Amino acid sequence: MAEILAIKPAAIDGPVAARLDKAVLRLTLANPPANALSLSVMAALSAELEQAKANKSVRVIVLAAAGKVFCAGHDLKEMTARRADADKGKAFFEQTFSACAALMQAIVRHPLPIIAEVDGLATAAGLQLVASCDLAIASHEATFCTPGVNIGLFCSTPMVALSRNVSRKHAMEMLLTGETIDAATAKEFGLVNRVVPREYLNRIVTKYAQTIASKSSLVVKTGKEAFYAQAEMGLADAYAYTGRVMVENMLARDAEEGIGAFIGKRKPEWTDD
Amino acid sequence: MAEILAIKPAAIDGPVAARLDKAVLRLTLANPPANALSLSVMAALSAELEQAKANKSVRVIVLAAAGKVFCAGHDLKEMTARRADADKGKAFFEQTFSACAALMQAIVRHPLPIIAEVDGLATAAGLQLVASCDLAIASHEATFCTPGVNIGLFCSTPMVALSRNVSRKHAMEMLLTGETIDAATAKEFGLVNRVVPREYLNRIVTKYAQTIASKSSLVVKTGKEAFYAQAEMGLADAYAYTGRVMVENMLARDAEEGIGAFIGKRKPEWTDD
Amino acid sequence: MAEILAIKPAAIDGPVAARLDKAVLRLTLANPPANALSLSVMAALSAELEQAKANKSVRVIVLAAAGKVFCAGHDLKEMTARRADADKGKAFFEQTFSACAALMQAIVRHPLPIIAEVDGLATAAGLQLVASCDLAIASHEATFCTPGVNIGLFCSTPMVALSRNVSRKHAMEMLLTGETIDAATAKEFGLVNRVVPREYLNRIVTKYAQTIASKSSLVVKTGKEAFYAQAEMGLADAYAYTGRVMVENMLARDAEEGIGAFIGKRKPEWTDD
Repeated sequence: MAEILAIKPAAIDGPVAARLDKAVLRLTLANPPANALSLSVMAALSAELEQAKANKSVRVIVLAAAGKVFCAGHDLKEMTARRADADKGKAFFEQTFSACAALMQAIVRHPLPIIAEVDGLATAAGLQLVASCDLAIASHEATFCTPGVNIGLFCSTPMVALSRNVSRKHAMEMLLTGETIDAATAKEFGLVNRVVPREYLNRIVTKYAQTIASKSSLVVKTGKEAFYAQAEMGLADAYAYTGRVMVENMLARDAEEGIGAFIGKRKPEWTDD
Repeated sequence: MAEILAIKPAAIDGPVAARLDKAVLRLTLANPPANALSLSVMAALSAELEQAKANKSVRVIVLAAAGKVFCAGHDLKEMTARRADADKGKAFFEQTFSACAALMQAIVRHPLPIIAEVDGLATAAGLQLVASCDLAIASHEATFCTPGVNIGLFCSTPMVALSRNVSRKHAMEMLLTGETIDAATAKEFGLVNRVVPREYLNRIVTKYAQTIASKSSLVVKTGKEAFYAQAEMGLADAYAYTGRVMVENMLARDAEEGIGAFIGKRKPEWTDD
Repeated sequence: MAEILAIKPAAIDGPVAARLDKAVLRLTLANPPANALSLSVMAALSAELEQAKANKSVRVIVLAAAGKVFCAGHDLKEMTARRADADKGKAFFEQTFSACAALMQAIVRHPLPIIAEVDGLATAAGLQLVASCDLAIASHEATFCTPGVNIGLFCSTPMVALSRNVSRKHAMEMLLTGETIDAATAKEFGLVNRVVPREYLNRIVTKYAQTIASKSSLVVKTGKEAFYAQAEMGLADAYAYTGRVMVENMLARDAEEGIGAFIGKRKPEWTDD
């Protein structure tokens, strides 16, 4: 696969840096120290995700961050300033949580796999980003919390993603105490897949990304979409639905190629259709 | 926070002892050795939970037990005696399981966080109590089982709570074999949050309780209610619902106070509204 | 319990060997090296499961396999051959995935507990078999994967069973990378209950099976059915439903016998009704 370099100065200078390297699009929250999810950051990240759908060169997305904080959640100063609005900020708060919910669902519904690379504190909506990604790999220095309860704003939207990653007792402990867990505990809880030394983090994430990028994009897209769809169904519906998905997948060119290559003991050549 | 002592002799003398200390209401099953959930014990516990809702001094509830058995489940002698009824006990059994289901749901739906403090055997509906609480902290001496299968009465209601705490294979192993697991295994399964030495159990539970009691009661109530509600929804509905919860939370006085205090680097003063 | 030997030469010679020993029916995939789930193997396994329902001598089923591969999933050569059909195999693929979904649901809906005994590679629909069983016990040599993504056919039906056993991040890691996990990781993920030395595997599985076989078959059937049904319900519905199950269970003869025996400190004598 040829190396393709992104040449989008706007994105590189904005709050989200985008770099495409060997089919892996690396989106970096580039607004340290907090990397807060202000409306403009959420808009920039959403736009990058949307653009990636149309870019055939992108096969996997990595979500990373610059600095010691992966993401500190919403921009509390931006929100507090709007309490001066005539409606005490209500419309702005609705806009903020609506944009956040749309962003998180855009990650889950995205046709490409998205891997969180976490090397610092992921808190509130920042933790929600990690929980919403398909995979998450953290350094030993990464930490995680849902501290909204400490500032009078329970992490009620982050909990949607958190509670679909970890067990109820673990989620409730994080949510009710607001305390921070380390990377090893996050792995034990199921919030991250692996914890690795900081100096190898990027290399290991890239290896995961390249492994997945080497598969058929059509097949990965089919599977990711089916995964989250069936997760919300009862068993009988889930089997009826995925049965149809499997038949369609079998009739796709890449299944014929992949199975043929497997039987013929050769390397498959994907055409992503 | 001033120390407030409960002065309810009836409760102290009944099957459930109630003691209020620094905003933490400690409810102790006080019917050893089995602390069985007879109709009267379930009624007493339900009444205490109901009363706590109206008592503004209570911010967190701890559910503990006197003696070596946390709770042995239903009162089998009480139930067996009713087989002599004209309907062979049917009406009484319906009353028992209905009261039990109402009690367990009252824990989940309660506006206050409830922490199980487990220092002995929690079995059948006793285990269900632990699984229904928001958090559970156990001593190394605590043990857990769903042994109904051994006596011809499968733990079909306890499994509702158990299977919402632990994975399917783990739940089925406990339910089908009826065997007892130790505290470390219960932690590994996700049934309890922490396992601590017996001599520190009460102190550690109290520390958790006081930590949570130091938050805004309104915010904790909002979050607990939203947690269990969104857990039963699909992703899109969960985000639509919790988005509304967040906006309402932002407009509450305690969010303004808490976020203002955070930005101003001062301690928040909750008014619980 | 008297030892009963199965005398069904057809089954012994077919792709699924059946042996009944002390109430435990051992079904062995006997089509090594791959033990692939061709249509005929799925039909044979489904027929054995169906027959076992009518055989009062069977109380527990163990699903095992001959050779180094527990089960390699669907028969890719059989499927590929049908690409020559006028419809490019569509009807045959529908038949295959429909038979597979029916088989997996027949395991979950079966009145008897089913234990997977895994001593080799369980892959794709082979992993799905393990995930669909009530319990799974593996040797240290067992390995697990969902490698469909490597051959252009995402494991979309296996994921239905997998994602009901393990957390989302773990499932997605297996599905997206297609990589193999060892038995210890499978235990950590919650896919198997225990990992034991190969030389003790059969003995330990048999011990589990005999333990469960010693319970009332009616009660085990009642509980297994209720478990998977309530798992798909919201909390209020789950309690309403299992409350009715408990009352009916209490009125069954085996509950009266079991509870009476417990109170009387004697061994119960089940009549399975």
